[in-house]
Amino acid sequence: MLRTHTCGEIRIEHVTKQVILCGWVQRIRDKGGLIWIDLRDRYGLTQLLLEEGKTDPETIAMVRTLGREFVLKATGEVIERKSKNPNLPTGDIEIRLEKLEILNPAKLPPFLIEDETDGGDDLRMKYRYLDLRRNPVRKNLELRHKMAQQTRIYMDGQDFIEVETPVLIKSTPEGARDFVVPSRMNPGEFYALPQSPQTFKQLLMVSGFDRYYQIVKCFRDEDLRADRQPEFTQIDCEMSFIEQEDILQMFEGLVRHLFETVKGIGLDEVPRMTYAEAMRLYGSDKPDTRFGMPFVELKGAFDTVDLTSGKNFVVFDSAEIVIGINAKGCAHYTRKQMDELTDFIKRPQIGGKGLIYVRYNEDGTVKSSVDKFYSEEDLKHWVVQFQAEPGDLLLIMSGETSKARKQLSELRLEMGNRLGLRDPNTFSALWVLDFPLLEYGEEEKRWFAMHHPFTSPKPEDIQLLETDPGAVRANAYDMVINGTEVGGGSIRIFQRDLQSRMFDLLGFSPEEAKAQFGFLLDAFEFGAPPHGGIAFGFDRLCSIFGGADSIRDFIAFPKNNSGRDVMIDSPSVIAQGQLEELQIAVAKK
Amino acid sequence: MLRTHTCGEIRIEHVTKQVILCGWVQRIRDKGGLIWIDLRDRYGLTQLLLEEGKTDPETIAMVRTLGREFVLKATGEVIERKSKNPNLPTGDIEIRLEKLEILNPAKLPPFLIEDETDGGDDLRMKYRYLDLRRNPVRKNLELRHKMAQQTRIYMDGQDFIEVETPVLIKSTPEGARDFVVPSRMNPGEFYALPQSPQTFKQLLMVSGFDRYYQIVKCFRDEDLRADRQPEFTQIDCEMSFIEQEDILQMFEGLVRHLFETVKGIGLDEVPRMTYAEAMRLYGSDKPDTRFGMPFVELKGAFDTVDLTSGKNFVVFDSAEIVIGINAKGCAHYTRKQMDELTDFIKRPQIGGKGLIYVRYNEDGTVKSSVDKFYSEEDLKHWVVQFQAEPGDLLLIMSGETSKARKQLSELRLEMGNRLGLRDPNTFSALWVLDFPLLEYGEEEKRWFAMHHPFTSPKPEDIQLLETDPGAVRANAYDMVINGTEVGGGSIRIFQRDLQSRMFDLLGFSPEEAKAQFGFLLDAFEFGAPPHGGIAFGFDRLCSIFGGADSIRDFIAFPKNNSGRDVMIDSPSVIAQGQLEELQIAVAKK
Repeated sequence: MLRTHTCGEIRIEHVTKQVILCGWVQRIRDKGGLIWIDLRDRYGLTQLLLEEGKTDPETIAMVRTLGREFVLKATGEVIERKSKNPNLPTGDIEIRLEKLEILNPAKLPPFLIEDETDGGDDLRMKYRYLDLRRNPVRKNLELRHKMAQQTRIYMDGQDFIEVETPVLIKSTPEGARDFVVPSRMNPGEFYALPQSPQTFKQLLMVSGFDRYYQIVKCFRDEDLRADRQPEFTQIDCEMSFIEQEDILQMFEGLVRHLFETVKGIGLDEVPRMTYAEAMRLYGSDKPDTRFGMPFVELKGAFDTVDLTSGKNFVVFDSAEIVIGINAKGCAHYTRKQMDELTDFIKRPQIGGKGLIYVRYNEDGTVKSSVDKFYSEEDLKHWVVQFQAEPGDLLLIMSGETSKARKQLSELRLEMGNRLGLRDPNTFSALWVLDFPLLEYGEEEKRWFAMHHPFTSPKPEDIQLLETDPGAVRANAYDMVINGTEVGGGSIRIFQRDLQSRMFDLLGFSPEEAKAQFGFLLDAFEFGAPPHGGIAFGFDRLCSIFGGADSIRDFIAFPKNNSGRDVMIDSPSVIAQGQLEELQIAVAKK
Repeated sequence: MLRTHTCGEIRIEHVTKQVILCGWVQRIRDKGGLIWIDLRDRYGLTQLLLEEGKTDPETIAMVRTLGREFVLKATGEVIERKSKNPNLPTGDIEIRLEKLEILNPAKLPPFLIEDETDGGDDLRMKYRYLDLRRNPVRKNLELRHKMAQQTRIYMDGQDFIEVETPVLIKSTPEGARDFVVPSRMNPGEFYALPQSPQTFKQLLMVSGFDRYYQIVKCFRDEDLRADRQPEFTQIDCEMSFIEQEDILQMFEGLVRHLFETVKGIGLDEVPRMTYAEAMRLYGSDKPDTRFGMPFVELKGAFDTVDLTSGKNFVVFDSAEIVIGINAKGCAHYTRKQMDELTDFIKRPQIGGKGLIYVRYNEDGTVKSSVDKFYSEEDLKHWVVQFQAEPGDLLLIMSGETSKARKQLSELRLEMGNRLGLRDPNTFSALWVLDFPLLEYGEEEKRWFAMHHPFTSPKPEDIQLLETDPGAVRANAYDMVINGTEVGGGSIRIFQRDLQSRMFDLLGFSPEEAKAQFGFLLDAFEFGAPPHGGIAFGFDRLCSIFGGADSIRDFIAFPKNNSGRDVMIDSPSVIAQGQLEELQIAVAKK
């Protein structure tokens, strides 16, 4: 080793020891004949000291040529510091520099390599290897490593076997767009990169592996957003001879284990909510349960307030649903603040038409934007309905049920932000259960699997498969933390007949079903056990544990929103000879 | 859970307990009013018992409809067996069946699901999910899981961080053929799948990660052989601020840890040999050191025997090298056996011209196939040279040095096989050091990197880079176990200038070097530390630990020699719409 110690481990008890350190120049101070160098490596920071008159003049001259990020090998004696730095684990000591070797010089980095940097996103992506030197970024990847370690410890402890499934698989029409790989040995044919190891893990259950997991790369060729990457990592799991309850307990256990070991947080028992309930109470299948603020229905399937006394308030009268939230203590909101909220819900991506408010003033009076239409008595009925107290503000929306719920859900989150109810260091997990099995594609005029075609309907709903497909509930579940879906799964179909019916419902001809999934249908005839599983989005789970919004900060070498790695400049054109060998051609429009 | 216990855990102390088991029918015996079912799961085998007159007749009737591989849920009482089976962990007990549920029926499997099966390779590949049910195949994957676990335990213990590097990267012309992935968002451009995370791990060193590892999928679009797969797994590692010796010790430690924890074998200190020595003594850079049988040179760089006394034996006189091995105790070989050896070395893939032998008979006489040319006195000189004893057989070849060595190396391995010196349960590891940096491509008329373009020359040989490139040795090393290269690596170049010289030597123009590896050259200017690493072929390492020849048995879903997954029938044609979205076309010749 070029060093005897790292830059993070020398303490007061090493004083008088001769040590060799290697690392990067974090900063240099040169003042009054004394020079200090902060030398940095992954493990910490150690201060080197040079003193005019004591240190060899050649070494001093050399040090005065150094810049930030030079790579040094420094030899010297550990001495006690005169002025200690209690914020630094090595703050009690410094190294009296005796010998210095420049292992590699460094050009001035294009941005500051400090916890707070002056580099913009694009620059930091291009020089990702420099951004990775910064403590916060490195710590994110260290967190990710720890999460993976603890995941494996838990899964191994529960008798799961990690099995690697193939990356070069087969393209299937269902679900998101596949990345494909032309096969040179089979010209005209293509592999696909897996969107998940779904069918392989089910086959492993047919093989009797009983408990499988894998931390595995998956791929989706979709248009990207801030929290999506073309390649992403899943904790992929499957179990045999189980029911939904077993999966919920097993993986609640995993999440609890991760919170305990990685964050030192004891997670409460994870509450459960049906999909229908989540939509009714929060307008979302991934409600942020760090705070309450549930929806109250003034009109709708659960309405209990008579709105007919209103003087022809056509907005409510014509609405399918009238729902609202109680923003505690916000009755004092100014006109400007109210306008901000109205502007918020009118944003194109939210698409709200308008916002009704009812202030329940501290003095017990009620003031609303619909005073023209409703009597104070009416409004006080509402107030009771919302369980409001003086000082509260009711925010009410109306319209078509699914749209109004979605819009109010956004507003609820916005109010959560404004009221400081969404602390990234507070964690609230939730199981959402009983998802619909199918959703109707208006454009394609056919049913789509909400989770995937292998999800089993609830036995009691199977009878509805042909008569009312939209009402069939699935044995499917999501885990939601702080309003983000971190994992989802289902109990699978394991009978050939039911799987065939399912493909049929999804518009596969028997020939298509056989061509795409014949191996799975076959497998179900050779003794498939009841089974089910779950997959967690590992990047997202890490970002939530790290208290961050974007998954990008938890991926060593992420791609930008155009799917480009700007550091290595990929994708790129390839040689004509490569195309010819693969027997494909570029056919740009 | 559908079961209370697995099929592997019930013991004598459970007697009288009511249990529920789930599993597959391994076999059924129906004899004299008694029926036994062997129920199998991943954890073991448990015997169920039915008794006419005692067991419910309906259940007995149901059992008589069962076939092999039916999936059952069986409820009953644990009882002590009359005739115990000491070979089975559950052999002291059986379950008196009370209630039976058929969870799924099974068609007759296309081959026997037993340790010894009647299924051919093709059939077992097509129904891989059934082959995976067999104990030996399942055990291979369990071994693989354990190897991965122990690798991570060792690496984590040594402060390595596992970092995931991208799968969608950039195609580079150097090395093997890349698999490529057309980019829909960047039409006309392609990603490549990584042949290794080489440049990324080096960038992580530039980032100061200090110690990196990853168990990672890699990809090579090469023509396949039995022990090659288009996708394979590496234990990929890199360290900073180290010298070659540190890498050798660290990863000898890994291999020793794996042998200890996975096989219970204490591995001796791993001997070291230079590439030159390995070629001279064994004609191979991956000698099988489970046995000796080193080459003896009669003529060549190290010759010590005067062959000129031969009566114009033109074969030797015109040869660049004359080398042989001493097959201990084989002087008794019959004419037929000698013919077999001659046939062996004349196989096209070996390409030998002929084989000279010298028998050192038990009675002290010497008999050879070149008696016409050499006197008994000459031959006795040879015998001394080979340190032969009465009863030994010398096998001698001649010709152009590299060819003759390669051929004799094959013969040596063949003799090792014949003499039973290559026991798959004996393990001999070896470091091969000081590989040449470059090898000359006769066809392309240029130098190629023997390891890869990032390998550093030995400092003392750098002066030869321009004058005698072929003589430059690299700081490169391979770990060989039982004649198989299981890992290889090098100390890397970390200076921009030297890396540029290297690209230059390999025929890259400065523009090409910049276009392909500009990001790495740039990175070297911002403070790159000295670093080096190694990668182990994980599939191969597992196969060696499992005492098997082929890596295929240690991969859950392998591909065949045409790169096809015959189970899922991949690769396959994709929809025209997919091609159009990707803006590529099939251009089959």
